[in-house]
Amino acid sequence: MYNSKETDYACILKSQKSDIGGINMTVEEMAREMKLQAPHMGATSAEARNSALEEIKNALTAHKEDIFAENHKDLDAADESGVADAVKKRLKFDEGKMNSVIEGLDALQKLEDPIGKVTLNRELDEGLRLVRQSCPIGVIGVIFEARPDALVQIASLCIKSGNCAILKGGKETINTNRILFKVIKEAIAKTELPDGCLAQAESHAEIDELLKLDGYVDLLIPRGSNKFVRYIMDNTSIPVMGHSDGICHIYVDEETDEAIDIITDAKIQYAAACNAVETILINKNVSDEFLKALAKRLRSEGVNINATPDMKERMGDEGADATSITDEDFDREYLSFALGIKFVSDVDEAIEHINRHGSHHTDAILTHNEDHIERFMQLVDSAGVYANCSTRFSDGFRYGFGAEVGISTGKIHARGPVGLDGLMTYKYKLYGSGQTVEKYATGEKAFTHREIPSDG
Amino acid sequence: MYNSKETDYACILKSQKSDIGGINMTVEEMAREMKLQAPHMGATSAEARNSALEEIKNALTAHKEDIFAENHKDLDAADESGVADAVKKRLKFDEGKMNSVIEGLDALQKLEDPIGKVTLNRELDEGLRLVRQSCPIGVIGVIFEARPDALVQIASLCIKSGNCAILKGGKETINTNRILFKVIKEAIAKTELPDGCLAQAESHAEIDELLKLDGYVDLLIPRGSNKFVRYIMDNTSIPVMGHSDGICHIYVDEETDEAIDIITDAKIQYAAACNAVETILINKNVSDEFLKALAKRLRSEGVNINATPDMKERMGDEGADATSITDEDFDREYLSFALGIKFVSDVDEAIEHINRHGSHHTDAILTHNEDHIERFMQLVDSAGVYANCSTRFSDGFRYGFGAEVGISTGKIHARGPVGLDGLMTYKYKLYGSGQTVEKYATGEKAFTHREIPSDG
Repeated sequence: MYNSKETDYACILKSQKSDIGGINMTVEEMAREMKLQAPHMGATSAEARNSALEEIKNALTAHKEDIFAENHKDLDAADESGVADAVKKRLKFDEGKMNSVIEGLDALQKLEDPIGKVTLNRELDEGLRLVRQSCPIGVIGVIFEARPDALVQIASLCIKSGNCAILKGGKETINTNRILFKVIKEAIAKTELPDGCLAQAESHAEIDELLKLDGYVDLLIPRGSNKFVRYIMDNTSIPVMGHSDGICHIYVDEETDEAIDIITDAKIQYAAACNAVETILINKNVSDEFLKALAKRLRSEGVNINATPDMKERMGDEGADATSITDEDFDREYLSFALGIKFVSDVDEAIEHINRHGSHHTDAILTHNEDHIERFMQLVDSAGVYANCSTRFSDGFRYGFGAEVGISTGKIHARGPVGLDGLMTYKYKLYGSGQTVEKYATGEKAFTHREIPSDG
Repeated sequence: MYNSKETDYACILKSQKSDIGGINMTVEEMAREMKLQAPHMGATSAEARNSALEEIKNALTAHKEDIFAENHKDLDAADESGVADAVKKRLKFDEGKMNSVIEGLDALQKLEDPIGKVTLNRELDEGLRLVRQSCPIGVIGVIFEARPDALVQIASLCIKSGNCAILKGGKETINTNRILFKVIKEAIAKTELPDGCLAQAESHAEIDELLKLDGYVDLLIPRGSNKFVRYIMDNTSIPVMGHSDGICHIYVDEETDEAIDIITDAKIQYAAACNAVETILINKNVSDEFLKALAKRLRSEGVNINATPDMKERMGDEGADATSITDEDFDREYLSFALGIKFVSDVDEAIEHINRHGSHHTDAILTHNEDHIERFMQLVDSAGVYANCSTRFSDGFRYGFGAEVGISTGKIHARGPVGLDGLMTYKYKLYGSGQTVEKYATGEKAFTHREIPSDG
């Protein structure tokens, strides 16, 4: 949960001042300044950006006791306000979280520089050459849930990719965020990176300010509850990268040896994750034995089964205590040890159900039938379409991207798990020698449109 | 101008019925149906999509006299309501426009199929293979100004890229749009493409309906006046591809032989285009002779000069009738035979002016100084950064893209001139053989993350 008063987003005071890096600026002033700094950040060398990651790693290690102490203050405050244990786990920043943050910083340094990659090199005419080259997006606003490790992870992804970032963490970890940000800023000050490449926003009111700054902020990445992400998407004209729902499906086209293991893994391996399965669609031709074994296994793992009446019936005794649901109940994201289950008559009905009720995140088919696999993968309109494995694989680390900012269900720009590439755009550079368009319009000159080989 | 009553967008009746392909459906019903059709459109073969383009070409040729007759009705109506000649030129669909539409359809058929390109092929572990493959975006809403040739061009780009499209043309060419759409639909009916892959919206109220359909429409492409594009951007949470302003700059770092030709071309070759230059920044060290020659040439071409007082003074007699402007007057898009002109002290001041006042579209530097060229290209935050040529080159045909939907100043997804690539997204296909995540989480198994060669 990002915020305990989730309905209050729209009715809070505007233009509140926030102490950013020691200077009193509004978010708007900060973003305007950052917009002009951003091209300079994009022009820094890979060495400078990697050495900033190294400095941050060393500074975090050197200040770790102070960081843990500040985190204890946040945990104590959470205890006082009776925060649930599951949430407290996300607030905690301990030796274990520190180690994975440090590992992340090491891995990020090793990744190839994403800036300046040439993706088109074309002679338009003699003496007129077009080059398309990758460059950072610019100013990114990151609004994240109460996970202090996310602050470090996203700040370092922005640094590696040459982007400037405004970071707004959850108030539940205000002390931890503050010291982490301070340590990171001091580490950056030792490098060649522009001082203003990172800024912190602390007050909740600043979220609404941030949403209005479409002239200065190029991209928003919200990391929080569905309701919060939806609020962001509905209240800004700045592009938003992310997803609100994660209604993932598994369609059992036929019984396979691993089907029950895969369904169980996809549900319970981390039930609160967006890539956990929520709906199981089962071909009506599978055996009653399979249905009974599936129900038995799910029950033994503590999963609540929500099934259509015909499904309950065929599950026999194992389905006796399942909750009865109807076809209208399949737009639900449980995010807990619970799932919905129903029959479909064939792969096409499964595809249609998923395209109608899903959230275009990740959906899987379990079958040995190659034709059904290809049809499912072709026609299911989701960022991830899987055969014979768990939906939980939908993740930047598991895909081998090294680091991720999150998962996108949007189709514009990055889709699926988003790594460094999702933080890049490109620009076209045109090198001329006096050319005007008029001569090509009249036919006096003609374009050659010749690709220049990469060694040319 | 898209519409003579531009302020009325928000206050028109909702849920008006429109006759789409002969069936009365609301835009919402149409879009919901199309969303389910879209994966099937994406699964059609390149041959089927190319043969649809061929059928459309033949049908347009066969019905050209009927089309011209309908267009005459629109032109007569325009005459009656006193539409300006410049606008009438855009409404006209004559032999010349027909020929370029036919040429476009031919060129499009020859372009490579953009669907199914593999951009990642990676073994995550033995028996677990990840493939990233290009696929169409899905349902695209195109709202365009009163240019009937744009209807054909954009419909054919959507067909080639396997997207479904809802087309809303301007009311000024309602008769022409109606017959063009009918001819295209009849041509598609002869092919294997789904009948519902294209739909037409005719009533103005449907624009506002369309803007709300973020569950069904994946992308909006508005083609119209700045004010209209801005209205679309501000009133939808659907991603919008395009640009509102085109405030392009030329910075004269030093006098070059072609500088005056380039500036003149960039201003007058097509003054109403978004890539026409609006602001000239001049290094204060250029000679008075250059300034006088520039002013003389612009005046002789009929260009109104808006200059700062110091610029006017150094232009001498040639600048005597120039309009005096101040530093506050440089956020203006003239879109006519007029431009603003001022001094800057060096390349850095030019870069800062452009990043602050520009629209991130296309900006050029004129100089022989290689360092200044590289600094300008690195630090100017625009989709196109040019050296020693006209800003008017910023165009899909001139870049060799064959066809374009428009120019994007957004940094998310396509930037600059947008061809077929901008209408594509990708999906991740994961082929497993029973894998669960738990075994990788516990360390029982480890990822191999091995790239599979393209012939593997």
